Amino acid sequence: MSDPTARRKPTIRDIAERAGVSRSTVSRVINGGHWVSPDARVAVEKAIVDSGYTANHHARSLATGRAGSMAFLLTEPQQLLFDDPTFALLLRGAAEALAQRSMTLVLLVAGTTAERESVAHFIRAGHVDGVMLISSHESEPLLDELIDIGIPTVCCGLPLGHEKDVSTISVDEVGSARTMAAHLRDAGHRRIGMITGPDDTPGGRYRLVGFREELGDAFDPSLVEAGDYSFESGQTAMARLLERGVDAVFAANDRMAAGAVAAARHAGVRVPEDVAVAGFDDSGLAATHEPPLTTIRQPWDQISARMVSALLDVIAGAPPRSVVLDTELVVRASA
Amino acid sequence: MSDPTARRKPTIRDIAERAGVSRSTVSRVINGGHWVSPDARVAVEKAIVDSGYTANHHARSLATGRAGSMAFLLTEPQQLLFDDPTFALLLRGAAEALAQRSMTLVLLVAGTTAERESVAHFIRAGHVDGVMLISSHESEPLLDELIDIGIPTVCCGLPLGHEKDVSTISVDEVGSARTMAAHLRDAGHRRIGMITGPDDTPGGRYRLVGFREELGDAFDPSLVEAGDYSFESGQTAMARLLERGVDAVFAANDRMAAGAVAAARHAGVRVPEDVAVAGFDDSGLAATHEPPLTTIRQPWDQISARMVSALLDVIAGAPPRSVVLDTELVVRASA
Repeated sequence: MSDPTARRKPTIRDIAERAGVSRSTVSRVINGGHWVSPDARVAVEKAIVDSGYTANHHARSLATGRAGSMAFLLTEPQQLLFDDPTFALLLRGAAEALAQRSMTLVLLVAGTTAERESVAHFIRAGHVDGVMLISSHESEPLLDELIDIGIPTVCCGLPLGHEKDVSTISVDEVGSARTMAAHLRDAGHRRIGMITGPDDTPGGRYRLVGFREELGDAFDPSLVEAGDYSFESGQTAMARLLERGVDAVFAANDRMAAGAVAAARHAGVRVPEDVAVAGFDDSGLAATHEPPLTTIRQPWDQISARMVSALLDVIAGAPPRSVVLDTELVVRASA
Repeated sequence: MSDPTARRKPTIRDIAERAGVSRSTVSRVINGGHWVSPDARVAVEKAIVDSGYTANHHARSLATGRAGSMAFLLTEPQQLLFDDPTFALLLRGAAEALAQRSMTLVLLVAGTTAERESVAHFIRAGHVDGVMLISSHESEPLLDELIDIGIPTVCCGLPLGHEKDVSTISVDEVGSARTMAAHLRDAGHRRIGMITGPDDTPGGRYRLVGFREELGDAFDPSLVEAGDYSFESGQTAMARLLERGVDAVFAANDRMAAGAVAAARHAGVRVPEDVAVAGFDDSGLAATHEPPLTTIRQPWDQISARMVSALLDVIAGAPPRSVVLDTELVVRASA
């Protein structure tokens, strides 16, 4: 037998020429034969046989065992992809890293139960070679299913209870939060509040741990307010903290920090003159904000690139491993 | 033979239990057998045979001939997905329409030549059942390839030269632009300028056609400036139009209208008191803009829903057809 990849595979265009019909007629014959005259159907079927055309789209994947594609799976409501700039940064980096390897990035969003089911179905059917799981929550039901399916998976952030099952790429959450707390304390602030993320997210839990560890005896639990990473939750939390009296606030992400600045402005409190406000992420928002936000820069490009290379390692058979990346304190005008 | 769908398919978890090893060990055996002890490999291989487990991810798709998924294929630079809110609106509507049918939405971005090649490869391999092609440009090289592949395709907007090959969902560009031009003229404006989109996009070309038709003898070609749909191009175009003297400006999208308002403000010209500014899209930006933008509302939810239903029709064998949807003039403070 000759090597089937050595000659060009016949296309719909070739069939159409042989059969003397339009390409859309060929396409309709292949997809069931509706709205096609009997003569045209016979001509197309003959041309298909003569040319050796195969309508089996799965032939290549079966032959290689690889789809040539990786899923960027976001298990959050789709709107968050557009509202939270950090997801766009991760997506861009992953797309670039895959493009360099001539692989396709497939974005899947599973924010609802129905979406989770159909996404699991899609992955189970082998349409992607691996999954980069992007979830802000530690307990992700889909992860258990991915492990069951046996699809190579890399998590962005630490998946609670599955640390040994999958590779993870994360940042030093505790150390980063300590760095920011020390920065605010060393600037002379004495009533330092914090706006945390949800407790079931690594960024919600471990940034608070680092903040508390660094402040030690100076930590005041009454100056901690819980947010949900949204601008609005930052506003609400800041309004409460201002009532209790704070001279600095560390928000667990930049969007809540922006909300905190808006709440301060609304209350006639100046940033940074009356109260310092710092964020976390350096997601693009921080640099263009008025005033520019002091924040912790996550290494977005590195996170994406390491997710892709870790996933290729897992596909090649390597056991799971955890990579923890460093962050950087970026001091701007707000704190 | 028994119906293979009648009993539960064995999972990695089942294999792990039978073999007395962890799930990740099973996964490593399936993916090549690296980093696995010989004893564990033998145990896993025996458990796979005993349980009837199939590692062939493609079995289901081959059996049904359907991937259960549709591609939302954006042939623009990925960043535009985040910069231009209209793509997010289309994506959200398509995801909802597919979720109702328990189908998976697969987002593919092909903004570069390398990405186009790998995306075509992915589609050719049968990982999606159909493609919703989202491109602002009339001449899209990937469309020709999709037609060759024979994959059911629906275009958002009119694809020049392929009107008969694929189904299209579009809005009445000429009529919408006439409506806006009439609104500005009937408000008493006499020097009405336009900021157009690129001439190779339907929105660039046909919105200008409608504007010119409606103004008739009052149309002044020296009051037309070309933009590229970006905020910055709206600013630049507006600065030139203000130098020539205009009392109203129609921008071919909301982002350019926002840029035009910024340029007017920079020049000390008030909107709408000194110059009226109108946009096109009603993409979310328009309602929250300061001042809120008068614009043409595209029926985003309908466009998405009709794309999905037209694609299902094509998959079922229906010939291509064109759907043209109506728009609505939304009058707000800016014009």
